[in-house]
Amino acid sequence: MHSPTTLLKLIEQSINDISYPTYPSSLYEPISYIMSLGGKRIRPTMLLMATDLFSGDIQKAIPAALAIETFHNFTLIHDDIMDNAPLRRGRQTVHEKWGTNTAILSGDVMMVEANKHITRVELAVLKPALDTFNATAQGVCEGQQLDMEFENRDDVSIEEYIDMIRLKTAVLLGGAMKLGAIVAGANDQEADHIYDFGENLGIAFQLQDDILDVFGDPEKFGKQIAGDIIANKKTFLLLKLQELVSPEDNPKLTQQFSNKDFEKKIQQVTRLYGNYKIRELATSEMKVYLDKAFKALNNIQVPESQKTEIIRLARQLMNREY
Amino acid sequence: MHSPTTLLKLIEQSINDISYPTYPSSLYEPISYIMSLGGKRIRPTMLLMATDLFSGDIQKAIPAALAIETFHNFTLIHDDIMDNAPLRRGRQTVHEKWGTNTAILSGDVMMVEANKHITRVELAVLKPALDTFNATAQGVCEGQQLDMEFENRDDVSIEEYIDMIRLKTAVLLGGAMKLGAIVAGANDQEADHIYDFGENLGIAFQLQDDILDVFGDPEKFGKQIAGDIIANKKTFLLLKLQELVSPEDNPKLTQQFSNKDFEKKIQQVTRLYGNYKIRELATSEMKVYLDKAFKALNNIQVPESQKTEIIRLARQLMNREY
Repeated sequence: MHSPTTLLKLIEQSINDISYPTYPSSLYEPISYIMSLGGKRIRPTMLLMATDLFSGDIQKAIPAALAIETFHNFTLIHDDIMDNAPLRRGRQTVHEKWGTNTAILSGDVMMVEANKHITRVELAVLKPALDTFNATAQGVCEGQQLDMEFENRDDVSIEEYIDMIRLKTAVLLGGAMKLGAIVAGANDQEADHIYDFGENLGIAFQLQDDILDVFGDPEKFGKQIAGDIIANKKTFLLLKLQELVSPEDNPKLTQQFSNKDFEKKIQQVTRLYGNYKIRELATSEMKVYLDKAFKALNNIQVPESQKTEIIRLARQLMNREY
Repeated sequence: MHSPTTLLKLIEQSINDISYPTYPSSLYEPISYIMSLGGKRIRPTMLLMATDLFSGDIQKAIPAALAIETFHNFTLIHDDIMDNAPLRRGRQTVHEKWGTNTAILSGDVMMVEANKHITRVELAVLKPALDTFNATAQGVCEGQQLDMEFENRDDVSIEEYIDMIRLKTAVLLGGAMKLGAIVAGANDQEADHIYDFGENLGIAFQLQDDILDVFGDPEKFGKQIAGDIIANKKTFLLLKLQELVSPEDNPKLTQQFSNKDFEKKIQQVTRLYGNYKIRELATSEMKVYLDKAFKALNNIQVPESQKTEIIRLARQLMNREY
């Protein structure tokens, strides 16, 4: 089995080796730029680990890994336009640097680049790989649309929220791992198991993100602590609190939505989270999905020793404090 | 051979038969909307005619035809955002009706839909079909980027302009016809010939568009007559005039760029076009590409009788007065 570190090196090398056309330069420069901003490359790493799990040839999975990472970075360019975000990984976003029109179009051609990568998988697995890739891409777009819509809705249910994060983030991890399995020649059932592992791990990961935003270690957490509270973001925590809050406490919560004293706002909302044991409830929900993930992994019929690297990486991802 | 009318009916029926997901509705409604706005469906029609030319099965080419038409309509959604256009085919543009963010995202998922269509071609031709489709999509994005860049440049050459319209509009017609040939099982050489036919016809068509904008029959021309002159658009006509204009006449031209009296502006620029025989020069340039197109068609080794429908449609497209 290859270690995540070895796989990450291979991915970084492969990303470096991509050569984009040079004309028109303003169309392709943003692609090199966003791809070079780094990130943890979790999706392509997990994809290659899935290939490894089924004893596939890692080299043959590189095109699929590049397709997934390129698609992911394309969504970041378009999401940043929609969210009006000035920064991405501490650097200017593409639309800030090159303007919105170029950002739209560079994103578009980046999706074409992703399609070109996936087309380079072996012919024997081309059709199922394309079907999985397209279904994944479609899910991610649906998730982003739901995320935008939820901002303007006051009646989002927990069920809808989980479905949104499933589509927006978990489907891509599931799809990546399924692609890794397909390239390795795994059968449909095995591919579905690893998909379920990735999707449920992705949901657990996002729920953990919601928790860490409020309760994470401020020293280690990269983002602004309690940024979700400041932005009134409808995370699992807030939706759960709104579900449970008593008629007496409800005004205390709603009046915080317009509180411009952020320090006080964070303090008040966090206190309510404490009163209603929201952290514990979120943690237990997270564990539900983590259990589902490991159950799916358990169903895969390969020697247990081949699962150790994946299990280790998943545990590591889920034990972060930031 | 099938007539263009028969093929158009088949295309319209196939577009009607597409069923998009219903959730989230705001993501998919814009797709049904733009696809139903109509248009001449020239690209999918030409695609099916290429299949017919090589005695292929029209039905098997439908997925490719839908991929091309869906991709084309996706580019319209994103182009309209970039051009800030309020209307498309006399109706509200998608970003006007649903907002820019939804228009970006609906466009994105529409590209995925296009990819799903192309994936449904027969497995035997899947790889070359994908390669052609992706190269086509990439060219169109490059052409749009160049078109935007040329707006802010004062030194665009005729050669650059022709290359821009080749990428922005002609590559899609060439790519569509090549796909039609690939689905029919034509060999690489034949597929390249029909590509050359489509691409050169596309360039001729766009040059004709430039001419008709100024000299077309106002009764028949759908768009505002001389809209290109009003907008100082760098068409073949203007670039050719700028190339030929004498030092004495040059100020007469440049002062028109800021003339707010549009009637006078059109009159003055049209007069300069007349003095320098720009219409004739544009027509002769157009004929160069039309000749190239028919030379490429001539190289295709099928009975001449199988070419009659394509020749008739091409002549019809090139004889429009509007």
